[in-house]
Amino acid sequence: HVPFSQSNSVRLLAKAVGGLIAIFAIALLAPFVLAVVNAEKDQWHYLTLSVIGIVVGVALFLQPTRGASLRARQVFLLTTVCWLCAGIFGALPLYIAGPKLGFVDALFESISAITTTGSTTIVGLDKLPSSALLWRAMLQWLGGVGIIVMAMAILPFLQVGGMRLFQAESSDISGKFLPRSNHMVMAIARVYLLLTIVAATVYWILGMGGFDAVVHAMTSVATGGFSNYDSSFGFFNDQPALVVAATLMMFLGALPFVLYIRVLKGDTEPLLHDPQVRAFTIFLVIVITALALLQAWNGRDTLDAFIHTGFNVVSVVTTTGYATEDYSQWGGWAIMAFFYLTFVGGCTGSTAGGIKIFRFQLSQLLLKKQFAQLIHPNLTRVQTYQDKRVNDTLLGSMVAFCFMYFLLVGALAFGLSFFDMDFISAISGAATAVSNVGPGLGDVIGPAGNFVTIEPGAKILLIIGMLAGRLEIMTVLILFHRQYWRH
Amino acid sequence: HVPFSQSNSVRLLAKAVGGLIAIFAIALLAPFVLAVVNAEKDQWHYLTLSVIGIVVGVALFLQPTRGASLRARQVFLLTTVCWLCAGIFGALPLYIAGPKLGFVDALFESISAITTTGSTTIVGLDKLPSSALLWRAMLQWLGGVGIIVMAMAILPFLQVGGMRLFQAESSDISGKFLPRSNHMVMAIARVYLLLTIVAATVYWILGMGGFDAVVHAMTSVATGGFSNYDSSFGFFNDQPALVVAATLMMFLGALPFVLYIRVLKGDTEPLLHDPQVRAFTIFLVIVITALALLQAWNGRDTLDAFIHTGFNVVSVVTTTGYATEDYSQWGGWAIMAFFYLTFVGGCTGSTAGGIKIFRFQLSQLLLKKQFAQLIHPNLTRVQTYQDKRVNDTLLGSMVAFCFMYFLLVGALAFGLSFFDMDFISAISGAATAVSNVGPGLGDVIGPAGNFVTIEPGAKILLIIGMLAGRLEIMTVLILFHRQYWRH
Ligand SMILES: [K+]
Ligand SMILES: [K+]
Repeated sequence: HVPFSQSNSVRLLAKAVGGLIAIFAIALLAPFVLAVVNAEKDQWHYLTLSVIGIVVGVALFLQPTRGASLRARQVFLLTTVCWLCAGIFGALPLYIAGPKLGFVDALFESISAITTTGSTTIVGLDKLPSSALLWRAMLQWLGGVGIIVMAMAILPFLQVGGMRLFQAESSDISGKFLPRSNHMVMAIARVYLLLTIVAATVYWILGMGGFDAVVHAMTSVATGGFSNYDSSFGFFNDQPALVVAATLMMFLGALPFVLYIRVLKGDTEPLLHDPQVRAFTIFLVIVITALALLQAWNGRDTLDAFIHTGFNVVSVVTTTGYATEDYSQWGGWAIMAFFYLTFVGGCTGSTAGGIKIFRFQLSQLLLKKQFAQLIHPNLTRVQTYQDKRVNDTLLGSMVAFCFMYFLLVGALAFGLSFFDMDFISAISGAATAVSNVGPGLGDVIGPAGNFVTIEPGAKILLIIGMLAGRLEIMTVLILFHRQYWRH
Repeated sequence: HVPFSQSNSVRLLAKAVGGLIAIFAIALLAPFVLAVVNAEKDQWHYLTLSVIGIVVGVALFLQPTRGASLRARQVFLLTTVCWLCAGIFGALPLYIAGPKLGFVDALFESISAITTTGSTTIVGLDKLPSSALLWRAMLQWLGGVGIIVMAMAILPFLQVGGMRLFQAESSDISGKFLPRSNHMVMAIARVYLLLTIVAATVYWILGMGGFDAVVHAMTSVATGGFSNYDSSFGFFNDQPALVVAATLMMFLGALPFVLYIRVLKGDTEPLLHDPQVRAFTIFLVIVITALALLQAWNGRDTLDAFIHTGFNVVSVVTTTGYATEDYSQWGGWAIMAFFYLTFVGGCTGSTAGGIKIFRFQLSQLLLKKQFAQLIHPNLTRVQTYQDKRVNDTLLGSMVAFCFMYFLLVGALAFGLSFFDMDFISAISGAATAVSNVGPGLGDVIGPAGNFVTIEPGAKILLIIGMLAGRLEIMTVLILFHRQYWRH
């Protein structure tokens, strides 16, 4: 047993941040190599940043710490600081090289990337140096695997938003932080890499260029949504097979990755019978069918309607945020539908953001119970989900999450309304940030729009929203709670 | 003990509907007298309707029933049917006399009145016969006292949306419906009448005409919001004292009426120390100050800013829905703020609609508990509200209410989007209906707008929203639950 001490905690924090920066700095060597190959003029900026990052990161990582014990409450801070620092480091290459964005724009782009949100402030992606495009995609890809690991190893331990449901049987609530074995983390990383390679190969076989295939594979599997083109995935509209393939890849990116590990071991049962996966699939089929039929009824070719409704619905629900066309032009009902779909999200344990399917299932259990009690006041029934008993503590934690989710979206939308954003832009902008989807609604930030024109203050609000949304809200908001900082 | 029987239940239902229609038919004699005095041409239509209503109502009321026992689940149906039938009867005078609205418009106007919503489909109120203006106001006034009685006597018994908190100590959960004594109902009616007389007197002393004073007193105390003028309360903008007085009257209409009974007995303690009243008052003071300062900062005279911000904020939060001006012109932040304020509502046990203050207080308790648990995982604490223990069952019931509230608003907004209503009109229209506020946002149904131009289908959706909102959502929605109709 190692006694907790303030200075040891700070050292552990620095160690984690250092390790993370070292990883991102090493990753930065890839855009550097690409820049050298393409003889880009900013190539040495990448190397400089990379070397500095590696040196500082490794120095922080190697400092001595006494044991690795952290209390749950310290892990909240650790998590938030790590993601923020990774975001800041990720912004530097976009600030000094490639698009040379202003600092707020660069930070927005980088946070948008590592949170796999995919809102962009860059106009003219089609002409951006490949190195910058690769870096954006790599940030999303790293952010994607980061969130899976977090959802598996950290969040259930923190008991945030009902995620205790996904706590492994072995880990107990001893009050100390014991991340899952490296074995599990490595297994997830392997599956993630494999799925990305499959996606890239499929895209390439179906006719995408090699670089585009790699970048879009990374941003599909990460449900990130960054594209190499201002027209997003609409650039490939003349190849419907690619559109359908990307629909599938986004869907796969939004399923619980732990189930893929079982599939690789030859056990497809868990994937096929997981209640979250089933509900998610059924939900998508119903929504796509309904909206596609509405489109067909409005005169669109039925196959075309299904392909593009499928793509854009899956894109928004999986929180990827690619677009093949401006779906807000489909009609008033489409604007309303896509606004709601912004909140849904994918399965927990995936790269997807949003409220997530299991919380809707828990809400359904809660409502079922209430209606049953209204009809039969004396009835009590045990409810289970994924073979685990759903008690009031778990439901309370899920409900608190949902409340804070909508409170945060509401507060951010109110804040955005002070920066010349109209009602639909403000409210959809806040929602798309917190859900890590990417595009909002309305003329400015809609699927055909761009975040470059909004004011810096609004961008900072959206940065807060993207980070809080990515870290399941409570992890960030608890840092602003008075009690948190008391001993 | 009287055995439950299907036919006896139907007879009890018919008895209740009959009694209600008789009351409304007798009330209709007042517009008839006014029409005779003013020599209006439709005067005999009122008398005909009134006589038919009294005959049918009394006949239904006087039929033999074996005892008055109803199960909780039967009371849901009874309540919904009663309000719907009262709304249909209330629509008839507007259909055959006065404005001679189309039937959907007349039903919309009548349901809007008895639910104290106050959305109107009549353009040209300034020239409408006094008898019709009086009938609209009386419908609101009767709807107002009806909801107070329901909140005191029926809803806590039904355990809807956490209202069990307000169950009187004497009534137990025996599985049978025992309304509070007639004594309590009469006491509330007396207080309601007294407050209306006070309001009318104050308005009259401050310079309103006699008829306007009576009508606006009725629609203020009922937090209904119908006015005799197309410009709503803005008609009296040149008399700031009236604007301030109406602000106070709306506020008084949104406090728990049971506390006034205590005040009349000389006991002001409960009113001054009620947690709901305190929170409501503090909330209003903070919001009004913030929004008025924003207005003053934008260059408006400070006193003027406080008077009109105060009036319109109180109007929306108490779910009255008068307007002295088009507050949506104050800026983007005002649109967002008034959109949120649409949901708040007043205190339970008042005439106000919306989510209501005590549910926000319960949500706060829930969030407090969750944050405390995240920081100190092993801590458990007993929470109380109004000296009653708040357990998970109560919180679950409140949470289910809030979920269904937003689900209903979302579903209605989606429905409205098919009737040519844009995003802000659809979503604010759904919200204003379910919260029983009155005006929405946007060019069409905003505070300066009118509901006459929207399509009949949209009006029917809003009628459903107003009724469900008025009856605390669950009371209506449970009728659509499969289990409800099973024996
Ligand atoms: K995204
Ligand atoms: K109202």
